[in-house]
Amino acid sequence: MLKNIYLEIEYEGTNYYGWQIQNTAHRLPTVQEELEKALEKLFKKKIRVISSGRTDKGVHAKAQVINFKVETSILLSRIKKALNSFLPEDIYIKKIKKVDLDFHARFGVKSRVYRYVILNRKEPDIFLRNYTWWLPQKLDLEKMKRLSLKLVGKRDFSLFAQSAGLYKSTEREIKRIEIKRRRWFISIDIEADGFLRGMVRNIVGFLVEVGLGKISLAEAYFILKENRRELLGKSAPAKGLYLWKVFY
Amino acid sequence: MLKNIYLEIEYEGTNYYGWQIQNTAHRLPTVQEELEKALEKLFKKKIRVISSGRTDKGVHAKAQVINFKVETSILLSRIKKALNSFLPEDIYIKKIKKVDLDFHARFGVKSRVYRYVILNRKEPDIFLRNYTWWLPQKLDLEKMKRLSLKLVGKRDFSLFAQSAGLYKSTEREIKRIEIKRRRWFISIDIEADGFLRGMVRNIVGFLVEVGLGKISLAEAYFILKENRRELLGKSAPAKGLYLWKVFY
Repeated sequence: MLKNIYLEIEYEGTNYYGWQIQNTAHRLPTVQEELEKALEKLFKKKIRVISSGRTDKGVHAKAQVINFKVETSILLSRIKKALNSFLPEDIYIKKIKKVDLDFHARFGVKSRVYRYVILNRKEPDIFLRNYTWWLPQKLDLEKMKRLSLKLVGKRDFSLFAQSAGLYKSTEREIKRIEIKRRRWFISIDIEADGFLRGMVRNIVGFLVEVGLGKISLAEAYFILKENRRELLGKSAPAKGLYLWKVFY
Repeated sequence: MLKNIYLEIEYEGTNYYGWQIQNTAHRLPTVQEELEKALEKLFKKKIRVISSGRTDKGVHAKAQVINFKVETSILLSRIKKALNSFLPEDIYIKKIKKVDLDFHARFGVKSRVYRYVILNRKEPDIFLRNYTWWLPQKLDLEKMKRLSLKLVGKRDFSLFAQSAGLYKSTEREIKRIEIKRRRWFISIDIEADGFLRGMVRNIVGFLVEVGLGKISLAEAYFILKENRRELLGKSAPAKGLYLWKVFY
């Protein structure tokens, strides 16, 4: 019987060129490729998977959602176990379930949450070097929160896109931005109905510039209003970014 | 003026063959080697460093202490900064200070503390795969604590040594073993005046066998009393082990 299988997976992006298979002559390792290799090993045929959306080079996932269809009578718990034994140690299937045949991991997305993690203390932590962005300077969280309120809502986000020209529409809806400090860590959660490529890292970079006082709030509002990309400042590095949750 | 310089360093052991320079034809990367390369780059001459003790392949350090002597007038804060810029990203100098000329990082040690970290929950965490030992089974901490009390004190620890024959004496004093659970993590701290090679990992492996119920407390006491190495069980993997603190 044809089954539509839903997986929730986590991966460390450090050693991958992102989620999506690269169709270049020089093929780079991607998470999708590793997963499809494991599926082929188990089911003895090529299976294409659908994800909730790509993640870029170096970006991590705590709960990426994917689905694929296959004719099989193997128990779900055994599929999970077998796939995890085939996958490299930096990719792991956390959950598996059967879903309706019309479930589609990308088209069905209501919203996705990205979390960005900053280590904000004087000394770095080598054990967290691939998992956080280390910023030793003082950050003004109040200013960052005030700016974040301006970003919530439905608007054109082309200012924060890596290549805005790629899209039919660059309008997206940010439902929520939450900035929290816990001890040395600052987390920035951004939930939206969709993201343009580079959007989260550009937003975090912009928030940080304001937190550091390199851009004033007045300047930030001006940049937003006038769509002045060249004044935005640096994008945040990939290593602090996690695809955190997908809602359907 | 000749200065005796004290460094407190942290390193991730994953990509090293331990602390100590290997005098083999096939030279493997070690932390000591990386540190001495950085010192040579800064001071333009070979400098041999002394550590509080070696750590094995894959073992981490949160606060390894080393010292070395050098004629220099460079400010300590600049030495720290320069060395950190030369060192690979998995080794970091946390503290630097000038100490008396007779301070010796190894001979001066009063005690060293090792911490072992177990991730004890059903699901693994790929982000912690190099930093913890994942054990999904239930562990009886009360039994482990009872056994640990038997190990505290001055006694012959040859039972737990990788090669007991190497030592003039295999007597050591364990001052303290502390086993704690915090959420999914179990930490085991062992403080002693000295450690035989493999001792911490063998003790942790032994405690875990008892925690899992593979060895009963009565059997464990028998193994201890009769020095029955072949009944000890598996050594704990290196990746969960940290040289945590050195006291002088």
